[in-house]
Amino acid sequence: MISRVLSAELAEHAGQRVTVAGWVHRRRRLKSVSFLVVRDRAGLAQAVTAHDPPSEVGPSGGGLSSANGSAESDLPAEETVVAVTGTVAANPQAPGGHELVEPSIEVLAETGAAPPFDLYRPAVNAALPTVLDHAPVALRHPLLRAPLEIAAAGVAGFRETLDRLGFTEIHTPKIVGSATESGANVFAIDYFGRPAYLAQSPQFYKQAMVGVFERVYEVGPVFRAEPHDTVRHLAQYTSLDAELGFIRDHRDVMAVLREVVAGMLESVRRRAGHAVSLLGVRLPEVPAEIPAVHFTEAQRLTSSPEPDLSPAQERWLSEWAEREHGSEFLFVTGYPMSKRPFYTHPDPERPGYTNGFDLLFRGLELVTGGQRLHRYDDYVRALADRGEDTGPYEGYLQAFRYGMPPHGGFALGLERWTAKLTGAANVRQVTAFPRDLHRLTP
Amino acid sequence: MISRVLSAELAEHAGQRVTVAGWVHRRRRLKSVSFLVVRDRAGLAQAVTAHDPPSEVGPSGGGLSSANGSAESDLPAEETVVAVTGTVAANPQAPGGHELVEPSIEVLAETGAAPPFDLYRPAVNAALPTVLDHAPVALRHPLLRAPLEIAAAGVAGFRETLDRLGFTEIHTPKIVGSATESGANVFAIDYFGRPAYLAQSPQFYKQAMVGVFERVYEVGPVFRAEPHDTVRHLAQYTSLDAELGFIRDHRDVMAVLREVVAGMLESVRRRAGHAVSLLGVRLPEVPAEIPAVHFTEAQRLTSSPEPDLSPAQERWLSEWAEREHGSEFLFVTGYPMSKRPFYTHPDPERPGYTNGFDLLFRGLELVTGGQRLHRYDDYVRALADRGEDTGPYEGYLQAFRYGMPPHGGFALGLERWTAKLTGAANVRQVTAFPRDLHRLTP
Repeated sequence: MISRVLSAELAEHAGQRVTVAGWVHRRRRLKSVSFLVVRDRAGLAQAVTAHDPPSEVGPSGGGLSSANGSAESDLPAEETVVAVTGTVAANPQAPGGHELVEPSIEVLAETGAAPPFDLYRPAVNAALPTVLDHAPVALRHPLLRAPLEIAAAGVAGFRETLDRLGFTEIHTPKIVGSATESGANVFAIDYFGRPAYLAQSPQFYKQAMVGVFERVYEVGPVFRAEPHDTVRHLAQYTSLDAELGFIRDHRDVMAVLREVVAGMLESVRRRAGHAVSLLGVRLPEVPAEIPAVHFTEAQRLTSSPEPDLSPAQERWLSEWAEREHGSEFLFVTGYPMSKRPFYTHPDPERPGYTNGFDLLFRGLELVTGGQRLHRYDDYVRALADRGEDTGPYEGYLQAFRYGMPPHGGFALGLERWTAKLTGAANVRQVTAFPRDLHRLTP
Repeated sequence: MISRVLSAELAEHAGQRVTVAGWVHRRRRLKSVSFLVVRDRAGLAQAVTAHDPPSEVGPSGGGLSSANGSAESDLPAEETVVAVTGTVAANPQAPGGHELVEPSIEVLAETGAAPPFDLYRPAVNAALPTVLDHAPVALRHPLLRAPLEIAAAGVAGFRETLDRLGFTEIHTPKIVGSATESGANVFAIDYFGRPAYLAQSPQFYKQAMVGVFERVYEVGPVFRAEPHDTVRHLAQYTSLDAELGFIRDHRDVMAVLREVVAGMLESVRRRAGHAVSLLGVRLPEVPAEIPAVHFTEAQRLTSSPEPDLSPAQERWLSEWAEREHGSEFLFVTGYPMSKRPFYTHPDPERPGYTNGFDLLFRGLELVTGGQRLHRYDDYVRALADRGEDTGPYEGYLQAFRYGMPPHGGFALGLERWTAKLTGAANVRQVTAFPRDLHRLTP
């Protein structure tokens, strides 16, 4: 590894001669001094040199300005990869309160083109399509990479919480033999000459694995051939799935989900604090018990005549929860059977309603979950009730032929979570290389 | 959650009346006593009852035998889901040294069929196709679930090590617009009426993200339309990918890989100790520096006339490393250009050879890695040398138009690693629901 310190570590080396390495974030030549701001994975570091007298030429490439140069172009261009060696000096105006003086610069790799927009400006001066078309370079902008750091920290918290609760991580097939789960919006693939499909979720596999490990989770891609072009749908997204057995009903699943959401936020706070500050993200508090309303009550509150809640009604309910319960999270429980997949466990005390729930966060449906059926005969009956043949489901139903405990689980879409947390209006803003109806590259 | 203790916690509750819950692993009725062995996620617990006098009928369903029964069939069948409440008593013969006496049993869920082979027998008395066809129930066998526990622990160690080294986790597209990486063995998909392909690796994306985060990793599925039916190839497998910038050359990547492998093994030891014991796995030691031989030296040692190493030669080299260096791991470095992808960095001092490496473990190529090209012009030249047009690679090459540091990385196949570690002859034995030329279900 090249010998270097990170930008964030400069203060620890005050008075010493050290090397930082990274990308030229910004070069500025003023009347009597020049600045070179270097970006590395930890942040920014500033090197400064006076022009008069000219800085000495270092052994590995020279000072900030060439001997006779005076134009900004004498400084290495933005995005050039450099190693800058200098003496660490305190300067309250510099990023992190320290800068490098008497610097010498070594160019590690040239850059061949100007970025499509200035990465050094505090704001992103580019429209979303420009950002997405140039993702490999655009994501270097601190404001665009920050949400991805927050996403990574959230996933780490998801796993950490579930590991602590005795869950086991699994990896399940993304290529499946039948398009059973929703029937629509699946991608077809040519599987050695046979038709197959990309999995829309690990639903059936995570349920089967409850029979093996009792408690399982998976973080992985899921695929939806979503024909609508909206700000919250992607053709591929990262699904955070969990499933657990030996529950009494869906409320045990909700209790685990509460722990998971709290653990994700705690991890974001701990691991991505810099990104949180940079974006000005206000992290929500998770109440010890997240308030819950039954679907019928939610309908009454929003005067909804439909057996479903509209996005506007979800927003209204979130505001209501904030107002009435001081919570940015709200469970809506008991969705009607007609609005839930066939594997959803009915509410034994309320015909027509389920033990299924959604978790709303800041006006958006963030998580869907619930108790599932666990008896083979109940599956056969549920499919018959929907006029479906069990044939295509045999692989799925197999697990239930052998004793399966009462169980349930949930799925959280990572991009939706990150968008809502960071205030991004479009999930594409927080996805490195989104896939949708129109976009297949880069 | 139902109120219970785990089988492994019985000793902590000696003398108390507790409930364990799980699956009936085995029922046995002897002349004067009956045993019911319950399997939960932590292991096995035994409940025992004497027949004379008959056990009392508990409030929630009765003793181990019905009042007038004497047949084994009076005990709940294997795989029935039960909660057994009893008093914890020491018994050196019982699993974990304690058992439940004066038990009463509550059936939580019936089972509808006998498993395809006896899950309670110490060995797996079934051929691999039977196991795979019945994976949802077969994987409940302790010997078949143990490798999946070891896999999960290994992945946790992979992440833990890289998190410590400042890497950021990423999630990249599995649907790509062109079949560029190897050109062959890709799955074609219908992407909203346009042709697209399943990604064979996150190679291009992880390289691009070095420009954003310097150090990245991804754990995710990769897809190979592998037309050969072998014991070490799957159509989908879990790839553990890492990539890092600011390296001097491939040796820096090898140093990180050494840490990763050591961290994975440490995690297996810590998190999956029970599975390791059950399978009788001998975990290897990782030397402080893993021995390395240059490809030309490996050729000389194995008298290989070909510009590649055969599986037999890899096995020989592993034995040699064990004999000469006391190491079960061996790096082979400097593979010829002709045997490496176009993005591989050449060895600047040895024309025709690369800064690419393989890591052999117990005779098998476990990891492939190396330094990559980092200059745009070098990519254009490398493609031209292979007679390829840059057109289909434009999305990939974009990252290199803007300064990219010297970088490299590696990919480790989770299933191969787990198979080699556990001594499984076939990767399918350590994959929950494998996909191959013939298998698309369950």
